[in-house]
Amino acid sequence: MSQPYEQSYLYRLRHSAAHLMAQAVTELYPGAKLSIGPPIENGFYYDIDFPESLKEEDLPRIEQKMKELSKLDQRIQRSEVSRDEAKNLILDDSIPSMGSTVAEYKLQLLDAIPEGETISFYDQQRTDRDGKLHRFLDLCRGPHVDTTKEIKHFKLMNLAGAYWRGEVKNKQLTRIYGTAFESAEELEAYLHMLEEAKKRDHRLLGKELGLFMFSPRVGTGLPLWLPKGATLRMVMTDFLQKEQVKRGYDPVVTPHIASIKLYEKSGHIINYRDKMFPFMEDQEGDKDTYILKPMNCPFHIEIYQSQMRSYRDLPVRYAEFGTVHRYEQSGEVTGILRARGFTQDDAHLFVTPEQLQDEFIGVVELMQTVLKKLGLSDYRVRVGTKDPAGDKYVGHDDNWVAATNAITDACDKLGLDYEISPGDAAFYGPKLDLIIKDALGREWQMGTVQVDYNLPERFELEYIGEDSKPHRPVMIHRAPFGSLERMIGLLTEQYTGAFPFWLSPVQITILAIADRHNEAAFAMATKLREEIYDSRNLRVTVDDRRETLGKKIREAQLHKTPYMLILGDRGLEEGTIGVRSREDGDLGEMTVASFLSALKN
Amino acid sequence: MSQPYEQSYLYRLRHSAAHLMAQAVTELYPGAKLSIGPPIENGFYYDIDFPESLKEEDLPRIEQKMKELSKLDQRIQRSEVSRDEAKNLILDDSIPSMGSTVAEYKLQLLDAIPEGETISFYDQQRTDRDGKLHRFLDLCRGPHVDTTKEIKHFKLMNLAGAYWRGEVKNKQLTRIYGTAFESAEELEAYLHMLEEAKKRDHRLLGKELGLFMFSPRVGTGLPLWLPKGATLRMVMTDFLQKEQVKRGYDPVVTPHIASIKLYEKSGHIINYRDKMFPFMEDQEGDKDTYILKPMNCPFHIEIYQSQMRSYRDLPVRYAEFGTVHRYEQSGEVTGILRARGFTQDDAHLFVTPEQLQDEFIGVVELMQTVLKKLGLSDYRVRVGTKDPAGDKYVGHDDNWVAATNAITDACDKLGLDYEISPGDAAFYGPKLDLIIKDALGREWQMGTVQVDYNLPERFELEYIGEDSKPHRPVMIHRAPFGSLERMIGLLTEQYTGAFPFWLSPVQITILAIADRHNEAAFAMATKLREEIYDSRNLRVTVDDRRETLGKKIREAQLHKTPYMLILGDRGLEEGTIGVRSREDGDLGEMTVASFLSALKN
Repeated sequence: MSQPYEQSYLYRLRHSAAHLMAQAVTELYPGAKLSIGPPIENGFYYDIDFPESLKEEDLPRIEQKMKELSKLDQRIQRSEVSRDEAKNLILDDSIPSMGSTVAEYKLQLLDAIPEGETISFYDQQRTDRDGKLHRFLDLCRGPHVDTTKEIKHFKLMNLAGAYWRGEVKNKQLTRIYGTAFESAEELEAYLHMLEEAKKRDHRLLGKELGLFMFSPRVGTGLPLWLPKGATLRMVMTDFLQKEQVKRGYDPVVTPHIASIKLYEKSGHIINYRDKMFPFMEDQEGDKDTYILKPMNCPFHIEIYQSQMRSYRDLPVRYAEFGTVHRYEQSGEVTGILRARGFTQDDAHLFVTPEQLQDEFIGVVELMQTVLKKLGLSDYRVRVGTKDPAGDKYVGHDDNWVAATNAITDACDKLGLDYEISPGDAAFYGPKLDLIIKDALGREWQMGTVQVDYNLPERFELEYIGEDSKPHRPVMIHRAPFGSLERMIGLLTEQYTGAFPFWLSPVQITILAIADRHNEAAFAMATKLREEIYDSRNLRVTVDDRRETLGKKIREAQLHKTPYMLILGDRGLEEGTIGVRSREDGDLGEMTVASFLSALKN
Repeated sequence: MSQPYEQSYLYRLRHSAAHLMAQAVTELYPGAKLSIGPPIENGFYYDIDFPESLKEEDLPRIEQKMKELSKLDQRIQRSEVSRDEAKNLILDDSIPSMGSTVAEYKLQLLDAIPEGETISFYDQQRTDRDGKLHRFLDLCRGPHVDTTKEIKHFKLMNLAGAYWRGEVKNKQLTRIYGTAFESAEELEAYLHMLEEAKKRDHRLLGKELGLFMFSPRVGTGLPLWLPKGATLRMVMTDFLQKEQVKRGYDPVVTPHIASIKLYEKSGHIINYRDKMFPFMEDQEGDKDTYILKPMNCPFHIEIYQSQMRSYRDLPVRYAEFGTVHRYEQSGEVTGILRARGFTQDDAHLFVTPEQLQDEFIGVVELMQTVLKKLGLSDYRVRVGTKDPAGDKYVGHDDNWVAATNAITDACDKLGLDYEISPGDAAFYGPKLDLIIKDALGREWQMGTVQVDYNLPERFELEYIGEDSKPHRPVMIHRAPFGSLERMIGLLTEQYTGAFPFWLSPVQITILAIADRHNEAAFAMATKLREEIYDSRNLRVTVDDRRETLGKKIREAQLHKTPYMLILGDRGLEEGTIGVRSREDGDLGEMTVASFLSALKN
């Protein structure tokens, strides 16, 4: 069960599917030059230099050819050869897929194999009715499945450009992406999931629902939050803030920039510079150089350090919705899931070593409360520990043992299932990650808790212990959402934009049937807005446009508004409204009071 | 009444006091070289090049001498002379305060008087008992009072260094600051006010009360908000946010940085560059250059412009607690009153010309609500209009007339007293400022409302009118607090840190008399925190330290906590607590329930 993907049958199957595709291409497009074709997370690809340009419309033809080749039950055979033999094979004009006209990339790949390493080929052979031998030979480390017949459930997905060896100066090849599964059902489920994911794409929904926007005049990865998105942020931060106050967290607010001195002290300038925005250097020379904040921790440390601390003051828990900026490559920016400016629901706990376990339990409990409230109940827990053989770690061994025990004991006490992932610790201490499985079965690494011995050391943090001597506190970094942006991105996809009632930016919309009902509709909205739900005022809008009721309902449905209250003559006369729910449609006529009492139960 | 200060008797009196001080200095410190000595806002100063260094301890001696000289009833006489005569006078060794050894600065001042301008001296003469003539002659434009006898109520305040002509390359002179008033009572009141102001200095109180801090590793003018300050911000923003939602504002959240392109379009790069932080320039050249946001307006405009707007969508009101950064000179930075990073309670309204007046009224009403809630009831209203002779303004004249009428009509409708201040408009439109008078009578310019025709023009903003044609909206910029930082600075000084109950970061502290009462104290705190006051949970702390009750009370008093609840054996047995109020001291024993009901009434 816990076998890594790279050692699985599925991985081999996908690798062989890449070869099968290359064989099909070789037969259909003589002169196509193969380069590399590895299995990847959800399938495989092959980068090929085509003699003519390929289009997405050509993929079914290749797929068809693959099916034919698969059925021929070609045995996939490995052979190990010397470097000279390898070169001869690659240049052998008598073997299809080989020969001097298409050898360009394979020769370079051969050269790149270090001296002394095994050189292997994989061969797919068949003889046709006319007795003619067809082969598909490829320089490849393997491993593969035994016969092409095993490759039954596959699909070619799409094309992309890819530079040879990933370097812009090289030629751009055509990358064909495909996927393969062991069963038709799995393939079907995967394709269905992709369809669903497309419908749920937070970038499209974010636009449709009016949550956020981007502007080229503002910049890549810098979202502007529209009224509904800003409301969503507010509801989420308010909820977490209240939970934090209950648990003894103190709010702080720190600047968005700092002098370079702060991040020299913290070590970020050395270890994190490539993720930081360009510096703000004063041209006059004698002034400070400023940096956009990439992490909140050093600021919270400055606050901790601004006064003497005694063991009686600890734990100190500073929480901030802190906006940080990271200079992600523009190609890596993905909507709000990976932005350049984002707001962490950050906190840092400064604790005595003795408090570490209890505080860790407290943090994990808070994270569980948060995920439950958000309706994200399917997640697994991964504890990243030190790689026993690694040497990138800082801090004493006994601190590592104590911290790791504190984490695993905490998980045990909470009755959490967790997997240990050696080598997944941060360089400064072990950590716990929550990996959420969404409605489509996709996994998202979200909240994290990290134990840190490094920054307290760098900043020489202290507290006076019961023995009246100075001691060093331990820090816990934690973010239950991860970031507001990433969590809202996930929630948008998880709920296809139909957020739970408490989160919905607009909870209720009143649809006035005709102009003469508008006044009553606005009066009703004002009254409803005074109602408290989940300790916030209800969020109510009025649709007073001169449109048909049908159109108003369709739009409210499109905006995923949980409840529509339809107000017409009967409303004015009898005080009842027609209630529609986003999920269940028409709920019939009722008074506002009975709607409210149903809502609150 | 409305006579400008510069034309007042008080201004002349202070000018003469500066001369009187210079006369005293000349008699006490032969060889002292005088430079300039003008009246200023709250008094006067004189910059003098002393032969030996002066200390604050020397000021009483100078003051004493001034008193003696004042009583001598010297007539202050003006004489107008030619440039040659002036030079002769300045170099005349027989006149005290003149002569070649001390003439250095006066000669330069004489040179600086443009050709053709009147050159005048003021002379103070007396003959002593021995018949010897004493004079004090000074090159001066005047005007002055008639006799030194009028200068009775004065005080020398402090010393400062001042470069000759304000240039660092020049010699540093000694500046003596003093003040003078027409009556002893006014002087007394002013000195008392200064004492009070010192006690109320928000920088000291901010530290004492744990509101905010600064750190050299973070940088000048970049406050770090401590838990109590962060709470204060939260209470204030929540309050305003709710008021804004009631009034149809929509929240938005925009990035802290933008590409330079945005601020080129808005015109800030040309008009505002010297207030902006250094740019973030990507060294690789082909990427965007980013700027720290100095103003929120262009972002809100991007949002307005992201979709088609119809007249039925207007007014659009975008509100954001937007943090902006302005690169103030480090010498101008003053605690949180003038910081480099601060958060505006900003909003931009996009309105049709027909809506302008109503929306303006709505904004002013909101500002009145805000000031009332904050307890700032003493303020005046200033309407800044176009200077009829000015040419720095943009926009059509009829727009200016309409906008100015909208503002003054709105003030009339609201029954507001206001003064018109021609020439005080922004270059893009007229504005209204609220000038608050604090408990010490000091004036603070806080909230502002501005009408803007310029940015809609620059960004070519549009809405489709009832006539189906595109029209240009008008923008209103407004900030009732001004900024959170500046308003918290003012409130701290206004209340000497004893904030009104609803604002107090800690509202109630429970003082456990002995360790055995701690458990009950924490239980009581938990219960009290569930109580709602002013639509927020009560903020309650427990003082569980092993200190005497007396010490705990003193500290709670020092922290200006509105209520202390004292919990001892009687609390455990009879369920009553001792209640102390910050203002009224001991309020006696009562149950928690009766304390709460008294609190809420």
